[in-house]
Amino acid sequence: MTESAHSAPHSELDLENRLIKFLHIKTHDHDTSLRDLHPADFADQFEELTKDQREEFLSTSPELISPEILAELEDEVVEDILPLLSHDQIAEALTELDNDDATQIFEEIETQQREEILEALEPTDRAKLEASLAFDDETIGRLMQREFVAAPPFWTVGDTIDHMRATGEDLPDLFYNIWVIDTKFHPLGFIPVSRLMRMPRATTLREMMNDQIITIAQDMDQEEAAYIFEKYHLISAPVLDSDGRISGIMTVDDIIDIIQDENKEDMLALAGVTDAGLTDTALSTVKSRAPWLFINLLTAIVASLVIARFDYTIQEIVQLAILMPIVASMGGNAGTQALAVVVRSLAERDLTPQTTWRAIRREAVAAAINGLVFAVALAFIAYIWFGRFDIAQVAFIAMVINHFFAGLAGILVPLGLKKLGQDPAVSSSVFVTTVTDVVGFLAFLGFAALMLL
Amino acid sequence: MTESAHSAPHSELDLENRLIKFLHIKTHDHDTSLRDLHPADFADQFEELTKDQREEFLSTSPELISPEILAELEDEVVEDILPLLSHDQIAEALTELDNDDATQIFEEIETQQREEILEALEPTDRAKLEASLAFDDETIGRLMQREFVAAPPFWTVGDTIDHMRATGEDLPDLFYNIWVIDTKFHPLGFIPVSRLMRMPRATTLREMMNDQIITIAQDMDQEEAAYIFEKYHLISAPVLDSDGRISGIMTVDDIIDIIQDENKEDMLALAGVTDAGLTDTALSTVKSRAPWLFINLLTAIVASLVIARFDYTIQEIVQLAILMPIVASMGGNAGTQALAVVVRSLAERDLTPQTTWRAIRREAVAAAINGLVFAVALAFIAYIWFGRFDIAQVAFIAMVINHFFAGLAGILVPLGLKKLGQDPAVSSSVFVTTVTDVVGFLAFLGFAALMLL
Repeated sequence: MTESAHSAPHSELDLENRLIKFLHIKTHDHDTSLRDLHPADFADQFEELTKDQREEFLSTSPELISPEILAELEDEVVEDILPLLSHDQIAEALTELDNDDATQIFEEIETQQREEILEALEPTDRAKLEASLAFDDETIGRLMQREFVAAPPFWTVGDTIDHMRATGEDLPDLFYNIWVIDTKFHPLGFIPVSRLMRMPRATTLREMMNDQIITIAQDMDQEEAAYIFEKYHLISAPVLDSDGRISGIMTVDDIIDIIQDENKEDMLALAGVTDAGLTDTALSTVKSRAPWLFINLLTAIVASLVIARFDYTIQEIVQLAILMPIVASMGGNAGTQALAVVVRSLAERDLTPQTTWRAIRREAVAAAINGLVFAVALAFIAYIWFGRFDIAQVAFIAMVINHFFAGLAGILVPLGLKKLGQDPAVSSSVFVTTVTDVVGFLAFLGFAALMLL
Repeated sequence: MTESAHSAPHSELDLENRLIKFLHIKTHDHDTSLRDLHPADFADQFEELTKDQREEFLSTSPELISPEILAELEDEVVEDILPLLSHDQIAEALTELDNDDATQIFEEIETQQREEILEALEPTDRAKLEASLAFDDETIGRLMQREFVAAPPFWTVGDTIDHMRATGEDLPDLFYNIWVIDTKFHPLGFIPVSRLMRMPRATTLREMMNDQIITIAQDMDQEEAAYIFEKYHLISAPVLDSDGRISGIMTVDDIIDIIQDENKEDMLALAGVTDAGLTDTALSTVKSRAPWLFINLLTAIVASLVIARFDYTIQEIVQLAILMPIVASMGGNAGTQALAVVVRSLAERDLTPQTTWRAIRREAVAAAINGLVFAVALAFIAYIWFGRFDIAQVAFIAMVINHFFAGLAGILVPLGLKKLGQDPAVSSSVFVTTVTDVVGFLAFLGFAALMLL
C-alpha cells in the first residue's frame, strides 16, 4: 500500500489499526494493509488468534472475512465463526466460491441455519450444493467441482476460444483442460489449455484431442482418487456418474489436501492417535488418545500375565527381571519398523500379489539376520554383566525368536487386516506390540525356567 | 488396439507375446497391446518383474522403454536398467524429456558413463543438465524445469497467442501460467492460461496480469517449496535466482512427489527406519533398520541399569517385576502419541510462537488427565490382582509421574531438536522412549523401595 492510501477516512484507518493489533502483524513499515494480504496468509494469521480474539475481531469487522479467506480457513475455525457472520454474508460467500469450496463451508453450518441460508441462494447454486451434499463424506461426489469446460469434438480451436470469450464470468476461475464430449456428456478426450492455444484456429478438437483419458468415479473414495492423480501426474480429471457422463471435475489442489489428510491419518493412527483432526483443547486431546492407551493397558496386562506365570523363576534368578524388558523392547521396535514400512507400501500400492510374497520373504530374512546380530550382542552383554553363560544363552534364544516373530507380525498383521477390509494403519500396532511383548516374555522366561532351574 | 493391428509382421507379434508373457498382463481380450498402455501403467508392471526378468526383457526389446516410461520408473529401477540401454537410447531420452525429468534420470547414470552421454547431447540440453546438477540434492535448483513461457507486459493477448503458435515445438509440453517479466527477467506478474484465452486479443498482459505472485528460490529446500505450493494452492510457480530473475519453474506434479517423499521419510523415521528408499532386498532392509535397533539396545540397557539398582526390591516383592513393564509401556505409548502429533504439526507449520505455548500446555494437561485416569485403572487392577493396597499406591504414583513426563517429552524433545537444527522426526523417538522407560522404572521401583521395604 502506498502513501496515498493514508488519505482514507479516519474510521477506516482505525479499523485497520485494530486489525493489525489483533492479528499481531509484524512489519517493518506501517504501510502494510490487511487487505493486501493473500487470503491464505490472512487465514493463517487469523487461525493463530484465540477464540476470544476471533470473536472480538468479528464483532467489529466481519466484512474483512472475504469468501476467499473463508475458503482458506480450517474446518474447525469455520465452524466457530459461521454463527458470528450474517446469513447474507454466508450466502454471498457460497455464491461467489466454486462449488467444491462452497460445499466444504456449508458442511460447517449448523443444521437449523442451513434451510434459511439455502433459501437465500440462487436456484442453480442451491441445486449444486444439494447435489454435492447427497454424497457420502470423503467421496469424490462430495468433493468435486461441478463447474467445468466441455466442448463437442466438431468444434474448432477458434469456436472454442470465441465461446470462452463470450461466456466469460460463468466459467470456472481457473481450468487446465477442455473436456471433449459427445451429445450425452460422455468424455471422448481432453485438450490441455496450453495445447489448445498453440494450435491454428481451424483445427477441430477431434483432430488434436488426447483420447487416453483418465477418469474417476463420483462414488470413489478420496484416497483412491488421490492415488490416480499421483500415478498419472494429473492436474485435473473428469468425474463420471454411473452412466459414464461427466458430472464434475477434480483438480490437483484439492487432491494435495486429500493426500495430506490421508498421510496425517496414517501417521497418527500408527502412533495410536484416534482422531486426526485439529485437537486444539486438552480435552479433545485426551479423548483422541485415551482409546489406544486403554487398549494398550489391556495388552500390557496380557504380557504381565505371562510374567506372572514365571514369578518363581524371577525370584530365583532376579537377573531375568533386569534383562526381560530388553528382549521385549527390541522385538517391539523391530515389529514397528516392519509395520511402518508395510503400511507405507500399502498406502502407495506397492504391494501387489507378485511383490507381496517377496516382501514377506524379505521381512522374514531381515528379521532373522537382525535377530541373530542383536542376540549375539545381548548375550555378550549379559555374560559380561552377570558372568553367567546360561543366562546369556537364554537371552540369545529369546532374542532370535522374538525378532523373527516381530518381523512376521510386522508384515502379516497389516496384510491380514487389509484382507479383512480393515484399515491396517489404525489397528495393526496393537496386535504387533502384543505379539512382541508376549512372545518376548514367554520365550525369555520360558526358556529360563526350562534351562536354568 | 483393433484387429487391423494384427496384420503386423510375424516378428512383431512374437515380440508382443513375449512382453505380454513377461508383464503378466491380465486381460479379457487378446487385443490389448503394450504400446497402448499409459507409460505409468507400463512402468508399474515393469517394476513388478524380478531383476532377472527385467534383464531378459531388455536384452530382447529395449526399444519398448520409451523416454516417458523411463521418467515414470522408480530411481532404483532406472539405476538397474540404464547399463542395459545403449548410449544413443539414453541420450535420446534425455533430449526428449523435459529438463527436470532428464536430470532425475541422469543422476542414476554411473559416473564413468556420464561423460560419453553428455557428449552425445545437443549443447543446450547439455548446458541445462549441467546447470541443474550444480545444485544440491533436494533443492529446487536441481528439481525445477528450465523450460517456461514468459512474455513482456506490453504484449497483447493476440501477440502472445500468435507467438506461441509460431514457437510450437520449443515450448514445454504443458504449462499453466504465462509469466510476465521485465527486460531483466524479473517477474512482474502472472496470467493463468485459462484466463489469457478468455480475454479479447487487444488486451495487454499488463492490464490483466495478477501481480500477487508467489515465487520460490532456487536454493530452497524441497520441503519448503512443497509447503508454499500447498498453502497457496499453486499449480506452478517461478523459481528465482539470487538476483531475483526467473531461472525456471516448479510444477505441482513434482511437488506431489516431494510431499509423498517427505511424508514417507517422516513416518518411517518415527518408526526408526533410517533409509526411506525402496528397500527391496533383505540386506538393504537389515541395513536400514539395524542403526535404530542398535540405539534402542543401548537405551534399553540404560533402563535395565535402573532396574538392576532395585534387584533386591524385586526379589522381595516379585509382583513389582510383573507390573513394571505396564508402567513403562503406558508411558512409552503416551509419549509416542504426543510425539507423532507434534512432528506432524511441525511438518504442517502449525506450531508458531503463539501456538507453541498453547500446545505445550495442552500436552501437559492432557498427559496429567490421562495419567490420572490410567493410574486409577492400574491401581485398581493391582489391588484386585495382588490384594495389596501398598503396591496399588506405588503403581498409581508411578503412572501419574510417567504419563506427565511422557507428555512433556513428547512435545519438548521434538521442539528442542528442531531448535538445534535437527530433523525432529528422525531423532525424537529414541529420546522420548528412553525418558519414559527410565522414568517409568525409576518411579515405580524407587517408590516401591521407599514405601514398601
